[in-house]
Amino acid sequence: MTGRCFGVGVGPGDPELLTVKALRVIGECQVVASFSAVGRVSNARQVVQAHLRTDHVELPLVYPLTTETVSRDEYEARLIDFYDESAKRIAEHLDGGCDVAVLCEGDPFFYGSYMYLHGRLASRYATEVVPGVSSALAGAMSISAPLVAGNEAFVVLSGVLGADELERRLRDAGAAVVMKVGRNLAKVRDAVTRAGLLDRAHYVEWSTHPRQRTMPLSETDGVIAPYFSMVVIPSIAAAR
Amino acid sequence: MTGRCFGVGVGPGDPELLTVKALRVIGECQVVASFSAVGRVSNARQVVQAHLRTDHVELPLVYPLTTETVSRDEYEARLIDFYDESAKRIAEHLDGGCDVAVLCEGDPFFYGSYMYLHGRLASRYATEVVPGVSSALAGAMSISAPLVAGNEAFVVLSGVLGADELERRLRDAGAAVVMKVGRNLAKVRDAVTRAGLLDRAHYVEWSTHPRQRTMPLSETDGVIAPYFSMVVIPSIAAAR
Repeated sequence: MTGRCFGVGVGPGDPELLTVKALRVIGECQVVASFSAVGRVSNARQVVQAHLRTDHVELPLVYPLTTETVSRDEYEARLIDFYDESAKRIAEHLDGGCDVAVLCEGDPFFYGSYMYLHGRLASRYATEVVPGVSSALAGAMSISAPLVAGNEAFVVLSGVLGADELERRLRDAGAAVVMKVGRNLAKVRDAVTRAGLLDRAHYVEWSTHPRQRTMPLSETDGVIAPYFSMVVIPSIAAAR
Repeated sequence: MTGRCFGVGVGPGDPELLTVKALRVIGECQVVASFSAVGRVSNARQVVQAHLRTDHVELPLVYPLTTETVSRDEYEARLIDFYDESAKRIAEHLDGGCDVAVLCEGDPFFYGSYMYLHGRLASRYATEVVPGVSSALAGAMSISAPLVAGNEAFVVLSGVLGADELERRLRDAGAAVVMKVGRNLAKVRDAVTRAGLLDRAHYVEWSTHPRQRTMPLSETDGVIAPYFSMVVIPSIAAAR
């Protein structure tokens, strides 16, 4: 019998936002895998830390490099190798009959790295995804503002997009969240301003973590935004 | 001391997708309120049923009518009265020093009725929202398909929108979920077809419930879609 591979959403950061199912699956798996950057602790692992046992085999999946150090093309080629290699390491455990939980911040199928492993493993092994609370929605809770109501359109955008595309898409949304703000903060703020939404926009970093910080986007001068930061633009209708 | 009001997201339907925090908050509240239609069981209440105690005071908030029976304007006027009255009933418990959990399917600030109570109570009482797993994301798990990847735009739409607007917004999205499909199924399918996305679109009803049912959208001839149904259009890039 080969093992099963679980993509486990651990939510936005607060360990209390783990689901009952995520805890059960992690408890039942022999192997727990988690992604991290070189020299960094895995955020997803930190969320579940209190639930890891000494008999869990841990499988750290460490990204080989960041975008800054090589060209975009080379980065993508190396990422493909990294996902191939990671899937192979997981497959070895599955072949040995062990169940593997791959931890994912937020939700595994929503911009999560797990999906690249899923694509490599799902045809050969039993896989299951445990959905999680997405930080895209938790950010509204961080600023105590209803996000979207009724029949409005809700849009999630990446801060990596160009300013013109961001502006165009923001103009067309009832409510929006821009993820991956980080070093794109100035550009995102510019696009939000040009879309006429600056007075409704909030900046949120480390949503639901102990280190959470929020402020109006208009007051972010001098802010060095971490990767886990976002801009939340709640709808006007929802606030009523 | 007045009580606190919690908007508690209970997730998409599977009781195992409740968060640890939702369970703690429900356990600590004296009063548990839940919305339902006339003559129907509250779906959110069913999700938490195993965690309700005999000493919980239950506060059913029953929608006075459905859209079919009166004009749109009259429906909206009566809804305002209903939310006013519901907020008043909750406020009586808060004034009496009791904490109240308002149960919400999915996430309270994401198209949830709780937000109308929040708007009426948050200025006078301590309020807190517990985010939940949204069915908008859980639907991708139901069809085992990664939803959205990289820097793609993700859009959530209401099936109540007109076919032209649906088509236009779907064409512009990397991945999309259409909620509130129900009796709008034929129109939504038409819009998806015109947007050239029918081959990627899946129909999902009762995501994560025991009664969950999924099929390609192209095979929904004759389907009577319940309110808790959606169309999920995963990105092409995410599937790679």
